[in-house]
Parts: sequence; C-alpha cells; structure tokens
Amino acid sequence: MSDDLSDFKLHIIGLGLMGGSLALAVREHVRYISADDLNPATLQAALQQGVIDAIGGGEQSDIVIVAIPAHRIVDYLQTLTVRSGALVIDLGSTKGAICDALDHLPPDVLAVGGHPMCGLAENGFSNAIPTLYHGARFVLCETARTTAHARHLAEQVALACGAVPLWMNRHQHDYLTAMTSHLPHLLNFALMRLAVEVSEEDPRLFELAAGGFDGATRLARTNAAMITGMFMTNADNLRTLTARLRQQLDDLEALFDNPNQLNEELRKIVEARRYYTKSYGERSLK
Amino acid sequence: MSDDLSDFKLHIIGLGLMGGSLALAVREHVRYISADDLNPATLQAALQQGVIDAIGGGEQSDIVIVAIPAHRIVDYLQTLTVRSGALVIDLGSTKGAICDALDHLPPDVLAVGGHPMCGLAENGFSNAIPTLYHGARFVLCETARTTAHARHLAEQVALACGAVPLWMNRHQHDYLTAMTSHLPHLLNFALMRLAVEVSEEDPRLFELAAGGFDGATRLARTNAAMITGMFMTNADNLRTLTARLRQQLDDLEALFDNPNQLNEELRKIVEARRYYTKSYGERSLK
Repeated sequence: MSDDLSDFKLHIIGLGLMGGSLALAVREHVRYISADDLNPATLQAALQQGVIDAIGGGEQSDIVIVAIPAHRIVDYLQTLTVRSGALVIDLGSTKGAICDALDHLPPDVLAVGGHPMCGLAENGFSNAIPTLYHGARFVLCETARTTAHARHLAEQVALACGAVPLWMNRHQHDYLTAMTSHLPHLLNFALMRLAVEVSEEDPRLFELAAGGFDGATRLARTNAAMITGMFMTNADNLRTLTARLRQQLDDLEALFDNPNQLNEELRKIVEARRYYTKSYGERSLK
Repeated sequence: MSDDLSDFKLHIIGLGLMGGSLALAVREHVRYISADDLNPATLQAALQQGVIDAIGGGEQSDIVIVAIPAHRIVDYLQTLTVRSGALVIDLGSTKGAICDALDHLPPDVLAVGGHPMCGLAENGFSNAIPTLYHGARFVLCETARTTAHARHLAEQVALACGAVPLWMNRHQHDYLTAMTSHLPHLLNFALMRLAVEVSEEDPRLFELAAGGFDGATRLARTNAAMITGMFMTNADNLRTLTARLRQQLDDLEALFDNPNQLNEELRKIVEARRYYTKSYGERSLK
C-alpha cells in the first residue's frame, strides 16, 4: 500500500473557505482532486480556475475530506459512500460527537478526525487562499477506524497543507478549543449584540468605537451557520467555560474599588499575554 | 486674543503613547512645545529627538495637555499651576469625575475635557507615532471653564492632531465608552485570565490558540496602570454594562439547543457587524 500522497485521488466535500484553501494548498501534492458542494456555481468556478479536476466522484477517491459545517457532519456521515480502504478526514471544529460517528463507519473504511486551527473572519470559496493552513496546528484525533497507515496518510495531508499535525484525544480537543476558539466567538457575538442594543438607545455609540471594539467583535463577522454548528456541537464545554468566565468577571469587578490589588491582578494578566505573544507570535484575522 | 494655534506655547504633562504622539502630530502647528514626565530618560530622549523644545515650564504655557493615566488626573489637577487664561485639556479615558474637577479650576483658567478615540496595544513614548490620531474622533466635553475661545482652541488642537473633534456631554461619553472600550478591555482581560487558569490544567492549551484567541485577548497586552484607571474611574457604568453582557450570554446560551433560532440570532449579529465594517472600516490594534 503506497504511502506517498502523490499516488492518491483526493475528494473534498464542501468547497468553502476551509475546503477551498485545502484544495489550493494540496493541489500539487496529490494525483487528482474532485469536489462536491451544495452550490453548483462554486464548483464551476473551482473547475474553471483549475483548483479541482472534476465535480463529484467521491466514491472513487482514496482520501475524502469532509469540510462542511460541524453540526451537519454526523448526519452527513450516515449517507457517505466511499470505496473500501478509503480514508475519511473531517475538518469539523468539534471532535467528540464526530469522532464517535467516525468510529461507526463500515469496518473497511479508514477515518481520522481533523481540525486545522486556522481561519479568516470571512468565509466561503471566494476567500480561500493557498496559505491559510501555513504554520497552523492541524489537530488529528484517532478513531476506531484509525490504522498506522491512516495516521501516516492524515499527517501527510496536514503537512501538504503547510500545517503541523498534532495528535490529541477528542475530549481534550473539545475542552481546549472551547477555551481558545468557541468562548472567544461567543463573547464577540454577545458584545456585538449588546452594542446593537445600546446603539438603539444612543446612535452616537458607533462613532466612538475604534480598534479596541473592532478587535473584540471581529469574530462576529463570520458565517452564522458555521458558528451555530460550533456552539451546538460543543454546548456543554462552552457552558462550563462561560460559567468560569463569569467567575473571572466577578473576581475583577470585586477589585474595582481596590486600585493596588486591581493593578496587580491586571499586571499579571498583561505579563501572561505578552509572554504568550513572545512564545507564539501575534496573529490577526483580517 | 489670537485663535491661531501657531501663536501658542503648548505643554504636555505625561509623555507616553498619547502625549508623545500628540507632540509629534502638533509639532509644526504650534510655536513651542515643552513637557514633563515622571521618567527623566523619556524627557531627555524627546528633547534629543527634537520632539519637544524644553523640559518643564508649564506655568508659562498657553495650552496645557494633561496626558497622564485617567485615575491620577483628578488629584493631579489640585497641584497644577498654570498662568491666567491658559487652556487645560486632559486626555483621560473617562470624563465624568475629571470634568467635575475641571469645573473647579480657578475662574481665570480655561478647561475642556478631552478623549481621543485611538491607541495601540502597547504604550509608552517609544511607541508614539505622529499618525496615531489621524482620522480618530477626539471627544471634547464642555466644563464650567469652557468659553467660546476655549472651544475653538480645543478644536484646533484636535484638528492639528489629524483627528475629528466631537462634542459630547461627559456622562453620555462615559456610558458610551464603557460600551465601546472599557467593557471590551474587561472581557479581553477576563478571557486571558481564564486561559491562564485552564493552561495550568492542560499546558497544550496555547498550542491550540490562533488568530481568534489572539484578537479576543489583544487588549490585555496593554499597560496595567492605564487600565486600572480606566476601570476605577468608570466602575459604575462598567458594572451596569457587564450585567447587561451577562444577560446577552444568558440569551445566547438559552438557544444552544435550538439550532434554527440560534442561527437566526447569530445571523442578525453578523449582519450588524458587517454593516458596521461597511460604515466605519475595520481597524486593527497592532
């Protein structure tokens, strides 16, 4: 069994920002790329631009990437038809329920749960770029359908994208990404929703907003269906962390009348944030 | 009485990011600039770089800019010595208590409360740039010491910085900026504080963080003393809005089990956020 990516046919289901960018990135690393998408115009555009070789044909492919919104993946897997021995990798932003579903694919199918830690504020194929995955961690989760060959091949896909494969237990992944991604999204949405309410009381509100507000609400510029999936499929972890966030707000608010202690607490947070920047760089969503 | 800025001597108290950038911006628009700062090295650097003409001498100046942390301004104004007829403008990020103090300056002194709506994640004179104020709203608040001449002169200072003067009642200003600036800061700090806690439970946390997390915590890279002042001097408004934010979180969390309604709510927020970008552009903190 070959383990060289260039021998394989790859099929992408869902040619949005993530699927489209993956296609652009692995184009030269695989033998052939095909795709499916709900939007025929997207597929035609991808075909005309040479991003894919064909529309449809997933059942003949060696590697099938499921790049649709997270909350649709479990149902979708029930209807998926792939050839015996093919490897299925999904890109859903939560992994618990999806990996549980991947566990139950037919025994002759290979499967790995995936989650590339990258994105843009705006989604869709028109925003896809070949460098989206560059340098990003590409989380991979083992399932009951993960063999050594599947592990190797999934790593090859991540590397072909320019990403860094990172194996992680599905539950660990879901709790940690609720913290690094889903809770930030929820807060951005809640803050923007409140701003809309306050602007109805005083329309000058948005005139006073600047870079700080923009950065703290930027994640709310994304695709609502994708975030619906994100919140629903990780609701328990997100509720747990939102409760912990409320506790942080309580702690900080309790210090508003105590300048020295407030300053000391804020100083520790600033120090941690600057150390984080030093360790990982500072990344922006456009 | 002249109303041409180039006839005037300007003095800046506090040569940090805001005071230093103001000096750089108005350099060619005034006759003479002097400054005071707690850090003698900063003053020496500014003098050597030609950003200021002299150290000290505020009591001979026509316009005195108070650019120190917001929570120190009220006390500082008690000790301020300026010549009769001079105009005092502070740059504090809250205006209620400061304008109340400006109301009580000697009757022969002019005073306007100011708040330029711009900044950078990192503070200090070394980060000062002449373009910091360009295109920003520069909120101006009338006090009991604001004459027509003072209004005109304060507007000239804002315009010389490249900013857009925006007159506003001090209480309005404080509620609206609690929403656009102080609450976003508090959420960024609370989120980073929680992330530190979670990373102590699982050190792989920060490996999973990417642009979304960075953007949602970037305001915590700032200066702790400045934020202490911001929170303390606007604590009541901030508490009111934090309570309203908790309500927003309740509302959204209640929809986690209702995909259609959740999607519809998120869609409305996305629409508002995109409309906001269309109307005001999209600004980043570096």
